[in-house]
Amino acid sequence: MKNVRLIIEYDGTNYHGWQIQKNAVGVQDVLQQAISWVTNEETTLMGSSRTDAGVHAWGQVANFFTKSTIPAEKWTHVLNTRLPQDIVIHDSTEVPITFNARFSNIGKTYFYRVRNTYFPSALERNRSYHIREKINIEAMQNAARLFLGTHDFSAFRSSKCTAKNTWKTLTHFTVEKKMDDIQFTITGDSFLQNMVRILVGTLLDVGKGSIQADHILDILRSKDRKNAGKTVPPQGLYLHSVHY
Amino acid sequence: MKNVRLIIEYDGTNYHGWQIQKNAVGVQDVLQQAISWVTNEETTLMGSSRTDAGVHAWGQVANFFTKSTIPAEKWTHVLNTRLPQDIVIHDSTEVPITFNARFSNIGKTYFYRVRNTYFPSALERNRSYHIREKINIEAMQNAARLFLGTHDFSAFRSSKCTAKNTWKTLTHFTVEKKMDDIQFTITGDSFLQNMVRILVGTLLDVGKGSIQADHILDILRSKDRKNAGKTVPPQGLYLHSVHY
Repeated sequence: MKNVRLIIEYDGTNYHGWQIQKNAVGVQDVLQQAISWVTNEETTLMGSSRTDAGVHAWGQVANFFTKSTIPAEKWTHVLNTRLPQDIVIHDSTEVPITFNARFSNIGKTYFYRVRNTYFPSALERNRSYHIREKINIEAMQNAARLFLGTHDFSAFRSSKCTAKNTWKTLTHFTVEKKMDDIQFTITGDSFLQNMVRILVGTLLDVGKGSIQADHILDILRSKDRKNAGKTVPPQGLYLHSVHY
Repeated sequence: MKNVRLIIEYDGTNYHGWQIQKNAVGVQDVLQQAISWVTNEETTLMGSSRTDAGVHAWGQVANFFTKSTIPAEKWTHVLNTRLPQDIVIHDSTEVPITFNARFSNIGKTYFYRVRNTYFPSALERNRSYHIREKINIEAMQNAARLFLGTHDFSAFRSSKCTAKNTWKTLTHFTVEKKMDDIQFTITGDSFLQNMVRILVGTLLDVGKGSIQADHILDILRSKDRKNAGKTVPPQGLYLHSVHY
């Protein structure tokens, strides 16, 4: 039995997220079907992160077990020839049998892209979140720093989130302006449901002036979702990389 | 009667090009229908460039005549509320009655994007042309310069092109490497059918070493399509701007 690790890029636009759903196609489904077609085995693919509908990935990591004799590094080509163009395998490697993409990782980096122009962009509509208002970048940079370190992020999770441990550690959170884009890059040990999208929504409120940067610590302390900003839409979010 | 000029961005992925086609939707159709819905008039929209299926535009220019009393600058908002998200109007202005987007322009700038990575990209599949081979950028930069000035571009047009004047003037043709992308920017007074895509295809052959840069002038002189490189695919091509 081999444990094969895949690194996967996908365009989330046409999928109902990573995970298999009733009556909707997840990226996981499409990959499992492609693997099972090759091996004739039932396959379960473990993903590091259950990205939501419309969210993209450059470096999703997943693993599966197989009795197939195909060398692990050949799986990249074998799968790319069967996958739709919006899912691409970038790497396949044999890993120890104890490796689990979801539980073995020690952190993840996400990227969120805002387009700050007067009109929305036809070409970038599924790749970024459009905001017309003037945004104060420096205020957002200062506020982002306040999230670094270990905090109870209860105020920054979906009301549907059932995680028991709400203490998370952020090691990197930067905001950069590049041409018409505002780019958020965030690394943490793990994330609550919708946490990145709520963090970005809250920073955008700081950038618009509707939340003062020095209220960030009060919002964290309140542990109340109502005090944080809105959940920004999925199409600006990218799972950048997973750390092991 | 008013003459209204529009500046239009579109994602060409889901259209059979700019022009109205039998049994296929062109960007021009969608825009004319939106304008006619507002004015209750029959509308003909003149575009500066008949982009092919799959080709994108940041700054397509078009004009139409109307008896409508809507101020010209309001057309941007009026149309954006009715258009699909993959077509966005960036500007609308009243122009002299003699203005014609196609015949009044004195030049156009196109942009072509190649992704030079080992694997194709899921996220960029409809936005660039993927090439795996190693490409010599400097050789392409040197060859691009040879096209500047006025030449008979007969060797660089589709066999279907019926244009009578094959002499065109290129004023700008640059090749830049940015991260994993190779970006071609080209400005000319006007272009033959598929000319930009054949020019880029020929430069890529230079970059791969299958055409020597000093053969470029021979290919131009030969006036024979067979001597030039292949027509690269449409999804890497963007109509950047039109000059008046």
